[in-house]
Amino acid sequence: MAGVVSSLRNSRVAAARKLQRTRVRRQTGRTTIEGPFLLEEATRSGCVVQEVFCLADDRATLELCTAHGIDVIVVEANVINGLADTIQPRGPVAVIGIPEAGSIQRVDSIVLWGVGDPGNAGTIIRTAAAFGFQVLATVDCVDLWAPKVIRSGVGAHFRAVPIEGVPPDPELLISSGLRLVVTAADGEAPLGEAVVGDDAVALIVGNEAQGVPVAVRQHPAVATAAIPMPGGTESLNAAVTAGIAMYERMRASAR
Amino acid sequence: MAGVVSSLRNSRVAAARKLQRTRVRRQTGRTTIEGPFLLEEATRSGCVVQEVFCLADDRATLELCTAHGIDVIVVEANVINGLADTIQPRGPVAVIGIPEAGSIQRVDSIVLWGVGDPGNAGTIIRTAAAFGFQVLATVDCVDLWAPKVIRSGVGAHFRAVPIEGVPPDPELLISSGLRLVVTAADGEAPLGEAVVGDDAVALIVGNEAQGVPVAVRQHPAVATAAIPMPGGTESLNAAVTAGIAMYERMRASAR
Repeated sequence: MAGVVSSLRNSRVAAARKLQRTRVRRQTGRTTIEGPFLLEEATRSGCVVQEVFCLADDRATLELCTAHGIDVIVVEANVINGLADTIQPRGPVAVIGIPEAGSIQRVDSIVLWGVGDPGNAGTIIRTAAAFGFQVLATVDCVDLWAPKVIRSGVGAHFRAVPIEGVPPDPELLISSGLRLVVTAADGEAPLGEAVVGDDAVALIVGNEAQGVPVAVRQHPAVATAAIPMPGGTESLNAAVTAGIAMYERMRASAR
Repeated sequence: MAGVVSSLRNSRVAAARKLQRTRVRRQTGRTTIEGPFLLEEATRSGCVVQEVFCLADDRATLELCTAHGIDVIVVEANVINGLADTIQPRGPVAVIGIPEAGSIQRVDSIVLWGVGDPGNAGTIIRTAAAFGFQVLATVDCVDLWAPKVIRSGVGAHFRAVPIEGVPPDPELLISSGLRLVVTAADGEAPLGEAVVGDDAVALIVGNEAQGVPVAVRQHPAVATAAIPMPGGTESLNAAVTAGIAMYERMRASAR
């Protein structure tokens, strides 16, 4: 093992730090993950872990890397701070290859349509993995492999690898054999009815501020579904809406 | 109007900045809110707005304060930065009196049992307001009047004023006439069955890391309910779990 790295100008540290930028992540097909849990999940899923930065006393990580033949770089706390996205990071920070997403399948799906909040995006991926939904995301969404999104996903990214870069065009999804359902305050049918059916459903969740574009909501092949709210003028968080919609679809399919 | 305040040492600015600490918020019964939307919601709900800090060109806020006779302090951008909790604040920042919570009613409730994440707590309050649930929180929860919690609540705090400081003892809730239901991976009944009934239900959501304490889950009067997950080993975010549980209860009651 080489010496302990204490400089952010170390070439490998500097290269990993560049992955904090969306553009660099997309160009290189790499991202970073943080913490022992995500590192374990990535390793277990067969994800390519290219290198791991950890503290000298982080025995668990050192052992995991030895066991899997992963290149490990022992660093000082300031380097972990410089690599990490959280406020009090303990490490490890790992550079991983972003897993290949498959092509769009004709199965129940959740579609992130311009979702911008990293916490919401990660939480939706987490719920989708729990409920067995395919995850699709339009090109204008937050980068789903940003560290904060992966953190909110709590490992779900590796089991329900999201399909990003979907053109924001309902026709594409329809031609993939998906029936589109949007939740809207003024939806035509209650959610519980709208999600019933033998076909594969694509539930669409919109941007936190703008919602789903009018052109999508008014598309003749898109059903709009309402979540009843006795509170009247209220609204729901995007990840909560997505969770309720996927739950309701899962229940309808199980009947 | 007095001159534009540019110093964080101005006595009113300094006093408002102290409200960033939980202890000071609790001692004084005050907190701060940020942004035009929350200020409008607070004003509309009849909440006591004690003073408002805003930029000189923030016409909408100046007009709102004049209309409601609210004391306004015009400040420089650095003061807004020092008062706000967000990264690129535009103001206004208002000091409000925390509304009085009522006593526990025998109505459908969501119970935050040691919930620690501000975003989750705020999102749960938002969902509760939409679905018409009473919000209860045990003493070990995050301060529900912390600015980040209020922000995630998107104004719901003023319509579903949470009852904080509930002792973490199931007996207290039972003696208030509430039937307790906890969601758990190994729940005895599916959620859809567990929430049915004419009585008032208290749905319990636990801490993000520890979940609901074993002593509560194993209490003979507490029902455990499972959200089915085809994904198997997965888990759900606390706010998503709470959202699904409240939605399911609301549907069961509407039948």
